[in-house]
Parts: sequence; C-alpha cells; structure tokens
Amino acid sequence: MHTYMNIAKSARISDDFWNVTDQAGMFDLVVAGLGDGRHRRLSDGHEFVNMSSYSYLGLDTHPQIVQAAADGVLAEGSLNTSTSRMRIRFGSLRAAEDELSDLFGVTAVTTASCAVASWVTLPLIASGLFTENIAPLMVFDKNAHFCLNAMKASVADEAEVVTIAHNDVEALEELCRTHPRVAYVADGVYSTGGRAPIPELLRLQERYGLFLVFDEAHSISTLGTNGRGAVLEELGQINDRTVVITSLNKGFGASGGAIFLGPTGSQARYDTAIRNGPLMWSQRINTAGLGAVIASAQLHRTDELAQLQRRLQANVDLFDSMVQTDLSGDGLPIRFVQVGSETATVNLAAALLDRGYYASPIFFPIIGRGRAGLRLMLRANMSAAQIEEFANLLKELNVPAEQPA
Amino acid sequence: MHTYMNIAKSARISDDFWNVTDQAGMFDLVVAGLGDGRHRRLSDGHEFVNMSSYSYLGLDTHPQIVQAAADGVLAEGSLNTSTSRMRIRFGSLRAAEDELSDLFGVTAVTTASCAVASWVTLPLIASGLFTENIAPLMVFDKNAHFCLNAMKASVADEAEVVTIAHNDVEALEELCRTHPRVAYVADGVYSTGGRAPIPELLRLQERYGLFLVFDEAHSISTLGTNGRGAVLEELGQINDRTVVITSLNKGFGASGGAIFLGPTGSQARYDTAIRNGPLMWSQRINTAGLGAVIASAQLHRTDELAQLQRRLQANVDLFDSMVQTDLSGDGLPIRFVQVGSETATVNLAAALLDRGYYASPIFFPIIGRGRAGLRLMLRANMSAAQIEEFANLLKELNVPAEQPA
Repeated sequence: MHTYMNIAKSARISDDFWNVTDQAGMFDLVVAGLGDGRHRRLSDGHEFVNMSSYSYLGLDTHPQIVQAAADGVLAEGSLNTSTSRMRIRFGSLRAAEDELSDLFGVTAVTTASCAVASWVTLPLIASGLFTENIAPLMVFDKNAHFCLNAMKASVADEAEVVTIAHNDVEALEELCRTHPRVAYVADGVYSTGGRAPIPELLRLQERYGLFLVFDEAHSISTLGTNGRGAVLEELGQINDRTVVITSLNKGFGASGGAIFLGPTGSQARYDTAIRNGPLMWSQRINTAGLGAVIASAQLHRTDELAQLQRRLQANVDLFDSMVQTDLSGDGLPIRFVQVGSETATVNLAAALLDRGYYASPIFFPIIGRGRAGLRLMLRANMSAAQIEEFANLLKELNVPAEQPA
Repeated sequence: MHTYMNIAKSARISDDFWNVTDQAGMFDLVVAGLGDGRHRRLSDGHEFVNMSSYSYLGLDTHPQIVQAAADGVLAEGSLNTSTSRMRIRFGSLRAAEDELSDLFGVTAVTTASCAVASWVTLPLIASGLFTENIAPLMVFDKNAHFCLNAMKASVADEAEVVTIAHNDVEALEELCRTHPRVAYVADGVYSTGGRAPIPELLRLQERYGLFLVFDEAHSISTLGTNGRGAVLEELGQINDRTVVITSLNKGFGASGGAIFLGPTGSQARYDTAIRNGPLMWSQRINTAGLGAVIASAQLHRTDELAQLQRRLQANVDLFDSMVQTDLSGDGLPIRFVQVGSETATVNLAAALLDRGYYASPIFFPIIGRGRAGLRLMLRANMSAAQIEEFANLLKELNVPAEQPA
C-alpha cells in the first residue's frame, strides 16, 4: 500500500496552501470570457489578462474555431451517438481523427481528455501488446505529468515499474542495457517548463529499441512544422517505437485529447486501443469539440499557424528580455518565477490580479515544498504592452530579477 | 502482477469476437444522425433505428438541448478557460454544477466523463478522506462497470480491495461485521441489466455505517422523481455515507459525467475532490456540453420529463409483452436477448441491421464466454410500430422466445 500514491498525506500537506490561495481570492475565479485571454470576474466585474493560459497560440477564442464548434453540434443534431464509439460514431468523429492523422502523419485516435489518453495508453503499452507481446520495463521520469504518474499502480499490474530522476539519460541507458524491453514515459515539454532530452532518447531508441511514450500536451501546436510539437519535429516522422499523447484542449484550441499510436495505417494498434479499455466505454469528444478539432486541424496547415508561432516566439523573447528566469532562452512559452514561500507567492499573485493580471501560484504537490512561485504561460495573442506592463509590475512588486536555482 | 487485470490475455480472448463483429459489418458504423435514435450509414446511405441507444428518454436529440449546446459555446466565446477549472472557470461551469446540485439535492461536481468520475472518486474514498481518515475496506461487486473495476489497482494502493459475487448482500454484511470501515462499489442499475439490492444495502448502511458508491449512469433521468435515479429515489435524500457517480452523456442527453459528493453544502468534500487528483488537471465538460447540461437540468424539473419516463415505461411494457427475457417486468429499459454462440449473435445482429434495426452484440469481456447476445435499450422516442416490427423480426430470425437462465 502507498507504493505510488498517498492521497491523504498529499492532501494534508497541500491543504494549507490551497486554503491560503482560497483566502487570497486566487482559487476558483468564476469568469466570463472577453476574448484573447482576457476575463471578467463575475462577482465584481473586475477585468484581467490571464498570464497562465495554456492556449499558447490564442486558438481557444479563434472565431473560426468557436463557430465550428457551435456548427458541429447543429450539423449532427446531437452531442454524441449514444452508443459506444467503437460501435457507432458520427462522421465528424471519423473526420476529426482523419484530419489529425493526416496533419501529423500518424494514426490518431481521440479521447475525452489528455488524461484519458494516458489511461488508455499506459496499461496497454505495459501489457506488451505494442512490444512483441513482451511486457516492457516501464520507466517513468520523476517529473512526468500527474496524469501519467496516476497510472503507475495500474501499469504495475501489467509490468514492472521504475521511476528515475528527471531527464536522467544515463540511468535510462543502464536499464536499456539490462532489460530486453524498456518503455520510457515522459513529457516532451514539461508543464512546469523545460523539455525532455529528445535527441538523446532517440539515440537510445536506435541503439536499444527503447519504446518512447511522450505527453506532448504543452508542445503540440506551439512548436514545429504545422504545430507537430517537439517530439515529432525531432523525429521528422513518427516510428512504431514511439507513442505520443496530447491534449487538443490546450494549444490546439479545441476539446479532448489524442493518441498518436504510430505511423499512418497502424490499423492493428488502432484496433487494439479501441477494443481494450477506456475507449470501449462511452466517452468521447462531443460534436462541438469535434467541430473545433477539424477547424483547428485545417488552420494548422495554413500560414496563419506559422505566423502565430512567430508572434508567440516574439512575445517569449520580449518577456525574457525583461524578466530573467531559469528557463530564459529555452524557446518554450512556459516560465516559472520562483518566489520560495507559499504565502509570499499567493500574496504576489493577489496583488498582480488587483492590477489586472492573473498568474497561477504553483506549489506542492506540483513542485517541491518551499519552492513555490508563479507559472507563466506566454501567448501569441498578448500585446507587447501587456507583457511590458506585467513585467514592470513583477519588478515593482519586488520579485528579484535573478532567480535562485 | 495481474492481480486485477491481464490486458494481453483479455485481448487474445476477445479479439476473435471483435474480428467476427467487424467482418459482419457490425463494428465502427460511421453515421449521420437523423434524430430520434435513427441513423444513416455514410458508406451506403442505409438507414436504421438504434435499438441499443442509452439515450433512454431521447434527450440526445432534443431540439432545446442541442440548441443550448451550440449557444453555450457562442455565449462564452470559447470551449474552455484554458486554465485548470479549480483556478478559473466559466460562469456556465458553475451554473451547470449549481443546477445539478439543486435538481438532485446534492453537492455535484462535473467531470469530463463518467469514467473520469470513477477515477476521481474511488481512490479518494479509498484514502479514507471521506470516512473519518480511516481507509475503508473497498468491496467491489463482481459486475461493477469496467470504469470502476479499472480503478482497482489504484484503489489497492490506498486501501484493501475485495471483490464479491454479484449482489451478494450476505457476503457484504459479513465484511461489515468484521471491518471497522467498509465501502461498497456497485452500479445502481447495471449496464447489462438488473439493479443493485438498494433497500438491503441501505439497511447495512444504517446498521454498520457502510459507505456506498454507486454508478448510476444507466439510471439517472430514466428513473425517479425529476430523474434522480434508482438510488436517490430509494434514499429520498442523499446522505453523507453515499456517493453517486453518473454520466450526463446517457439518459441526461448532454456531455460528461458528475459526482454527487454528498448532501447540499458538502463544501469540505467538494474542496477535497477538486484539490486532489484528476479534477486538478485540465479536463472538464466544454461549454457546449455545459449548455446542454443546464438545459437538460431545467427540463428535468418539468412535466415533460415525467411524460417521457411514462412513454419509456409504456415502450418497455410493449416490448416485454412481445419478447420474453430474463429481465422482463423489472421496470428497467435494458434487455438482454441471450443467443449463446458469439457467431450466431453477430449474424443475427447483421441480419437485423439489414432490415433496419441496429442491436449491439455483446460478449466477453462484457459478459461471460459462450453467453453472447444482444443488448437492447428501449427509448421513450421509439414508436410502437418500431418496437412491434423489431420484436417480430427477432422472432422471424429465429430467436427462441424463452431465454435460458
């Protein structure tokens, strides 16, 4: 018991921080959307800019995608077929998966969320069905996203589970040397910033046949040709030793999640995924989300996407030029401004919100105790004026320009 | 290893059946919706009535609900807030949860699906946070839905797990006698038909403080005052030893799932659920689904709902008068027509589809091997003519009127 989780203990530790957050008015803000990452708090009409929105390209309020969502429901006349998707599905579900498959050169299947994609994927891979019917040693990066970590107990019912230090390629290589089949579970881009050592991991894949499972929720759309993300950009073309799960609800600007099961035409894997586990049950992206997925996939093929990526990069550069953080210059839109104490972090966030900028205070269990800070996410649809004002407010409210390691 | 699941083994056994289903054209029908549970197959334009739709009241194509879904996206101008729901949520998410809470006299929280509701609920309950900080013995009914069973490994990392025979009140009482805290995990109404012995379970609750967790996905909307389902109808009012999870995507006619955490105003439980686990991550019902949830909740208060329930009951009675099954007369809309051999079942389903009626062939692992058959789900929006024609086709295609036990 408590090999992988201890919910009561985690809750005891984090509850105090959440209570502080709640008391500072930084928990459960109920809002109306104003577009372009701006919100109006319903309780008092206070308007603010969201500096922690994961809609990195601003697609969540893109008029074409929003309209396609509304049209998607009306076109099918229902939110779903009211039968498991593997038995009866709407044309829009097939169209969405075909669009994604074609866009990224993969065999894509959609899920109700990225977390559900993790739930579908990890036990299946652990079962050995994707690795010549030999259950692989399942190696998790210590910092892999919660939705991956939360599957460890289920995965351990199918295969041996090991957790290694963050980005520890050496430890992973040692495991590859001593085990016939190894699967490594990591984020491509981590939700708290930074990325996996993708080239080194691909080297291990080439040398040892390492199976790679990446959560690319914070990388799809934002990075790479047609928004294919950090992993596929490095790979060029997905191979049959790599599975990518992602959100379609973050950078992609739609709803739900997806699994890239392998190269185009991986029908056997598709069947295996559909027939065994959560995809059998009655959960899928509703027709509004599907309408948005299709519209967003089409937009990913246009020059508008490349323009938005460039605008995002310019905003990241502008922010980096004004606020020095550990991650400055890494080319990613996620920045962590470390403050240290949980209370100071929450107070800073509350003061920023008063001045019109929301930034998420982050603490245990998302990161270690006593290392609290603000998680910022730059967007393409922030103006230079907004970024400059926010950076100046950060300085004015007395955050040290240089962060401790 | 393989204490709870063995995916590779299950896949080996079920793959043959799925292949037969696929070859018979009964797998992955891609369709357009025609309303009222009717579909048009896109490949050839063949039209059919879905006799296995879990939209028991026909709300999935209710014009007001469908329109409210489309309007829900346009009103917020986005599918989601692009930040975790516990930090920033749209007014429509609060409104949907308030409507559900008020409608059913509970503290409701919504989830991306009923399966996600299970993922949120079971480890939390196992942790002891809902039972005076003492981890309860977690007792699963053998027939509990897959999305509950799939959590066993995670639950076992927090508490001891036991599985008992279906509806075995005696075994459960023995466990209550010998353990200080026991939680029982079951479906209120089972997806393959039949229901939990709710009055007997409530008796154990009263006597021993038994904690009850019910999946009411197949019972909410369909049964009870304002569609509150079998469990709440029996309880009258939810108590703090009962948690209900449900789908909002089945009878309810919207999207996603919900957890009824306890009586109105169970703020501590709500906070615990929101702060610890999958609800922290970025998955929620999108604004289209929320628009539909709100519209459907409002419809649940009207006489229209009671009328639809009566119409459903009349259709169930009509079907029962024509086709005798093990479940005839149980007042539920789920009927299982046992055939026996998997191949005969699939062939029967294919012949029915040719004649304009879709019925899901069901086999291992959903039910035991060699006990295959058709799962039928009656709906309020079936005409008497459809039910009569279908029942006659069942007879014509040589299904014995009396089913073996």
